[in-house]
Formats: sequence, C-alpha cells, structure tokens
Amino acid sequence: MFAVEVRDHVMIAHSLPRPVFGPAQAMHGATFVVDAAFFTAELDEDGLAVDIGLATKALADALAPLRYRNLDAEPTFAGKVTTTEVLAKHVFDRLAQAIRAGDLGAGGGRIRRLRVTLHESHVARGWYEADL
Amino acid sequence: MFAVEVRDHVMIAHSLPRPVFGPAQAMHGATFVVDAAFFTAELDEDGLAVDIGLATKALADALAPLRYRNLDAEPTFAGKVTTTEVLAKHVFDRLAQAIRAGDLGAGGGRIRRLRVTLHESHVARGWYEADL
Amino acid sequence: MFAVEVRDHVMIAHSLPRPVFGPAQAMHGATFVVDAAFFTAELDEDGLAVDIGLATKALADALAPLRYRNLDAEPTFAGKVTTTEVLAKHVFDRLAQAIRAGDLGAGGGRIRRLRVTLHESHVARGWYEADL
Amino acid sequence: MFAVEVRDHVMIAHSLPRPVFGPAQAMHGATFVVDAAFFTAELDEDGLAVDIGLATKALADALAPLRYRNLDAEPTFAGKVTTTEVLAKHVFDRLAQAIRAGDLGAGGGRIRRLRVTLHESHVARGWYEADL
Amino acid sequence: MFAVEVRDHVMIAHSLPRPVFGPAQAMHGATFVVDAAFFTAELDEDGLAVDIGLATKALADALAPLRYRNLDAEPTFAGKVTTTEVLAKHVFDRLAQAIRAGDLGAGGGRIRRLRVTLHESHVARGWYEADL
Amino acid sequence: MFAVEVRDHVMIAHSLPRPVFGPAQAMHGATFVVDAAFFTAELDEDGLAVDIGLATKALADALAPLRYRNLDAEPTFAGKVTTTEVLAKHVFDRLAQAIRAGDLGAGGGRIRRLRVTLHESHVARGWYEADL
Repeated sequence: MFAVEVRDHVMIAHSLPRPVFGPAQAMHGATFVVDAAFFTAELDEDGLAVDIGLATKALADALAPLRYRNLDAEPTFAGKVTTTEVLAKHVFDRLAQAIRAGDLGAGGGRIRRLRVTLHESHVARGWYEADL
Repeated sequence: MFAVEVRDHVMIAHSLPRPVFGPAQAMHGATFVVDAAFFTAELDEDGLAVDIGLATKALADALAPLRYRNLDAEPTFAGKVTTTEVLAKHVFDRLAQAIRAGDLGAGGGRIRRLRVTLHESHVARGWYEADL
Repeated sequence: MFAVEVRDHVMIAHSLPRPVFGPAQAMHGATFVVDAAFFTAELDEDGLAVDIGLATKALADALAPLRYRNLDAEPTFAGKVTTTEVLAKHVFDRLAQAIRAGDLGAGGGRIRRLRVTLHESHVARGWYEADL
Repeated sequence: MFAVEVRDHVMIAHSLPRPVFGPAQAMHGATFVVDAAFFTAELDEDGLAVDIGLATKALADALAPLRYRNLDAEPTFAGKVTTTEVLAKHVFDRLAQAIRAGDLGAGGGRIRRLRVTLHESHVARGWYEADL
Repeated sequence: MFAVEVRDHVMIAHSLPRPVFGPAQAMHGATFVVDAAFFTAELDEDGLAVDIGLATKALADALAPLRYRNLDAEPTFAGKVTTTEVLAKHVFDRLAQAIRAGDLGAGGGRIRRLRVTLHESHVARGWYEADL
Repeated sequence: MFAVEVRDHVMIAHSLPRPVFGPAQAMHGATFVVDAAFFTAELDEDGLAVDIGLATKALADALAPLRYRNLDAEPTFAGKVTTTEVLAKHVFDRLAQAIRAGDLGAGGGRIRRLRVTLHESHVARGWYEADL
C-alpha cells in the first residue's frame, strides 16, 4: 500500500463538559497539528498516489471551519463532546466527502483508506483510520 | 479504528551479552521514549476511545519498575536479553494486564489493539503491536 | 555558559481582540509546549547547573494557573492581549520570582539567565530571554 | 507484530516533467529522510526482530546509488517520474532484494513485512508498505 | 529580548563544485526547512514583537525565488557556492531588506536582530544571526 | 555569526551517587542525542563555516570513548558526577582540543565559539556554550 501524508494545523477553543474530563471541563483550547494520510494500492502514470497539492488543499478546506473557532459555539458540534477522537473522525468524514465530491481529482478514486491524526501536545495524539 | 497515543520515558542501564551485539555487549544504557497507542472500534458517549488520564497513568505504572534501573540486576529479566523489541513486548504485556485488571476504567473493555513503541535514539526505534 | 532546559505544556483558550489579529480576534485556543532554559556560569559540586527536578517542578508551578483556562476570564490578564510573546514573558516573570523565592534551592542563586519558549504549532514559536 | 525502524537520508536532484507538478516540473531537489521498518512475527533467541546493525547497513546500501545524484540522469529511472511514492517503492524493492540475498543475516527470513517512509519536508511524507 | 520564529521550506537543486565537497560536487539537491527568528527588545501595544502574519509572508517572499529552482542556473548565485551557510546569509539579507522596505509593517522598526536557520536533514543545519 | 550544527548520539550507563539525584543514584543509563554547533564570523572561499564532513567526524571521535560505556568504570570520570551538564562540557573540551589539533582542517582557525547540546529525553536537555 502506498500513502501520502500532509500536515496542517488549527487553533481552537472548547470545553469538555463531562465529569470524566476533570479540569478540562472548563473552557480551554488546543493547537491540533493535523496529519492526513491517503492510502492507495497503486500509483497513476505520473507516479502519484494522490496529487499532493490537492491533498494539502483538501486538508486545509476540511480544517477551515474549525480555524480560530470556539467549538462550543459551532452548530456542527451542538450536543457533542469535541474530544481529539471526535475531531479526528470529523475531519476524516469531511475529507472522505471531499474525495467523493472529486476534490482530489480523478485520482481520488484510487484512495482506499484514510487516516487523520491530531497531535494535541508533545505527549498525546489521537487518530481515526478506516477504509473508504 | 480510533486510537489515542500517550508518551512517557525511562532511563535504564543494561548489557546485551551476546556476540551479535558487538560493542553493546558491554554495560551501557538508554533513554527509551515510549509511546503507547490504544485502539478502539468505537467511542463512548463522552467521545472517548480511552480516558487519556488513565492511559497516561497506566503507561507510567507499566514503566515504573524500569525507571532508573539496571535491567541486568532485575529478576524480571533474568536470562533474557533486554533488547528494544523485548522491552516493547514487556511494556505491552504489562499494559494488557492493566487493561484486563480494569486500570483503564470501564472503557478499557473497548480496547481492541495495543501498540508500544520505544524510541531509542533519533535514528532507531522498535515496537510491538497486537490485538488484545 | 551552561544551560538546562525542561519541557511542559498547557492548553488555554483566549481571544486576541485587536484588528491586527484578523480571524484570531475570535475566541480560540492553543496548546503551548513550553521550554524553560536555566543558564549558569558554573556547576555546583554535584555537577549541576540547576536541580532538574526542581526546575521541572518550578515550570509546572508557573504554568499551573494557566492550565485549562480561558485567559480572557483571568484577572491576571485583564486589559492585556495574551499573545505568545506576552505569555512567554509572563512565565519568565513567574520563574524569575520562583528563583528569587528559593524554589530552585540553594543552586538557584547561580542562575544568571533564563529563556522561556512557547511553541504554538509546528511552524511558529516565540520566546523571552533575559539576564536575572 | 514486532518492528524495528532505522533512519538515514539522501539528498537528490530531479525534475518532475508532467503538467500536474506545476512549478516542480523544473529541476529542483530534496532531502529525503528515510525510515525503513522491518516487521516480524517473532524474535530470535537473542531477542531480535532484525539485527539493527545489518538493517542500518542494508538501508545505507539501498540509498547509496541515490546519494548526491541527479535522478534525471540515472539510467535506473529513465522514463520514470521520481515522485516520493515511486522512490519509496524503489527503496522498498532494493531492501526486499537485500533481504532475499541474505544481507539481513539468517534472521532476514523472519521478516514478514516492510515499510519505507520518505519524509520530504516537515509537512509532507510518503511511504510504501507491503508483505514480503 | 523577545523573539518570534516562523517556519517554511524550499526544495532546490544545486552542485557544490569544489574538491572539498567530495560526492556533493555532483548535481544533487536539498529540502531546506527554514526558520526565521525576529528579535525585539520590546513589544508593541498589541503585545507583539512582530506581526506573525507579516513575518510568515516575508519569509515566504524571501524564499520564493529559490522554490523549485536549480541554483546553478540562477544569476543571483553566479560564481557563488550555494552552501547552507551561504543560503542562510542570502535569506537573512533578503529579510533584512524586506524589514527596511517596510514589509513587516510599522513594527518592523523594532526588530533588532535576525536569525535564519536552514535544516538540511535530521542531522545537520546551519544558520546566520546578526543585529540589524 | 554563522553556525553549522551536526548531530550524533551515544548510549551510556552511569549512576549519580549523590542524595540530590534521588532514584537516579542507582545504576541506570541514557541515550544522549548530541548536537555540536560551530560558530564562525566569516565563511571561507568555498562558502563554508566549517567542513561539515570534518565536523561530523570530530563529533564522532569526541563521542567514541563514551559509546556503549559504563561511565562509572571510566578512569576519565573517576570522582566526577557525570550529569548531562558535566558531559556536555566534557564533549565541548574534546572538540575544542580537536579544533586546536587541526582536526577541523585549516578552517578550524575560524571557529570562534562552540556549543554542545545533550538531549537526554523528549523533555530535558542541557548544553555548554563558550568562546574558544
């Protein structure tokens, strides 16, 4: 399996209002450094798994609605707890949708699997990975 | 598959007394920066794969008996060669046991797979990954 | 000059309510991975610039009031814009105070210079460095 | 599954002469920091997945023909587009051949799977991973 | 002293045609991950050493003429050996010029010192640092 | 000021037999990832601060007597406490001696300043920096 992985980041505020989160129940925030890996079984005749320019743009587009936002105030996340895992799945879903919509170009059809990793600090990260 | 990965480290002494290890047969040591990744198929209703606080504590507990130790003098490793691979498996086994013992909380039952990575330098690392 | 540098992190929410910040005027947040470097001209008879355990604790103590907080609601920062630079200086001042208060032990008197670096993402960081 | 991963790097020039590459159609270059991961199901009686010394040498040997080269002038790549993905597969194939040729020693027969990752910058990387 | 440091990268081809460079005399290339640090003695009333958006743009502009280029063919470098050190100084000079030209805004006048670091691999980097 | 920095590593065992070190009084060990930075005011006519090949070799030579050693058993360190700071100074002194001995070539005379950094984990490092 081939893979191409690109990196971007977002800076968000949120609270995690459930007892299990202890002090993180309060309004705080995070920088998420986000890696998106696109897996394909084959390369096209240009030697590409995916067009890295389109992959980078797709990731930026997927992150745009989160950039400099307070997630507690975003209708998208109403009633949800915006943990790293939930956000990884959210970005995964948006990228999967972008691939289906053709945003990765003709080669998007080759993508078999996707992984979205959110690094929340130098000691913790979470990801979601699944076949498309 | 979801995953949450947390990081800690230990500083140990040991020797690797087999000819294949060349100069590393002598007493020397290592800092192992250790990543433990917990994989689950689903999230709980708090949006968690695992409770990151409990995961961090479980990793610290698994590493505690190694911290500032000479592994050559530890009964646990008598007759064993404490390579990076062997130690990755050792930490894996301790974490698997902690999960079975309920140290990861109720959510520990969701954990399907575990990976323990030991970074021994900026140019080498080893890991053990398996289903639980 | 000798130096010892230790690392910790905090996750905060804040807004930067001045036109120059564009979209960052909105409530958002950041993970700051924080490095504190302690500089001394000499080592003590234990071979130490500073006691790394005390240095780590002093950094954790300096960061504690920021941990999981919305800085917009903290009296400490009332009327201030909590940029990375301002926060680096804030942590610097708290550490300098801790050194004067003896929190770094007898060896704290050897510290000549201090640098506090806040990494806000994989592509940006800020710091404040000065003699004590 | 166990794995041992070692790191090396090469600095090459090339052009990517297809319209999809935009400005990268021109002669330019890259530092590829290369990770090779060797996966085994079991360890040998020395506690090893693979001999890390032999693994490091095999990776260096696989990279040697690329080191300080203009890939456009290399007969090996005539008619090929030397993308990160293509090069990851190229290094994978050379390592697989080295394993079959016995360069990883008797333990080379244990290797079940191989992954070669090429980091081309702090924001992009590609890899090829497959069973042997 | 305060500092803000931002990161970008370029991928270039070049040769180093002097005997001292051994195999690097041949046409090859590099990814340079570039950090530019802007030092100021004071912050403005918005809490800024420099406007990080302008700093990021100034670095991108300074690197633009190098992006995806063969430096051997660039008139700018005719008769010069484009080592990491020479390129660090080149980017430094362009940034210094941008600051003088007002590209960093009104706050550019506060910048006392500049450092440009080029990371050429995971094991080597060079930089140029000087007062303005 | 120009600088070139190269990286290597050593894996050592030692104990720190003074009460201040708590659990680290026991025999343990460390991987030290070591950066050596060579500072010069000017470049030579090949565009070099120092010959990076010679710098890399000088660092490897300086570290060779530490590689896979138990520092408690090394006459060099008899009666000394081998903290990160002490070892940084030790490597600094060896590099300074190598420069004086001509190991950095004719260009070694240009070196004005030297810094040796020892990274002992992902959260702690120490260094020694001084003019030559």
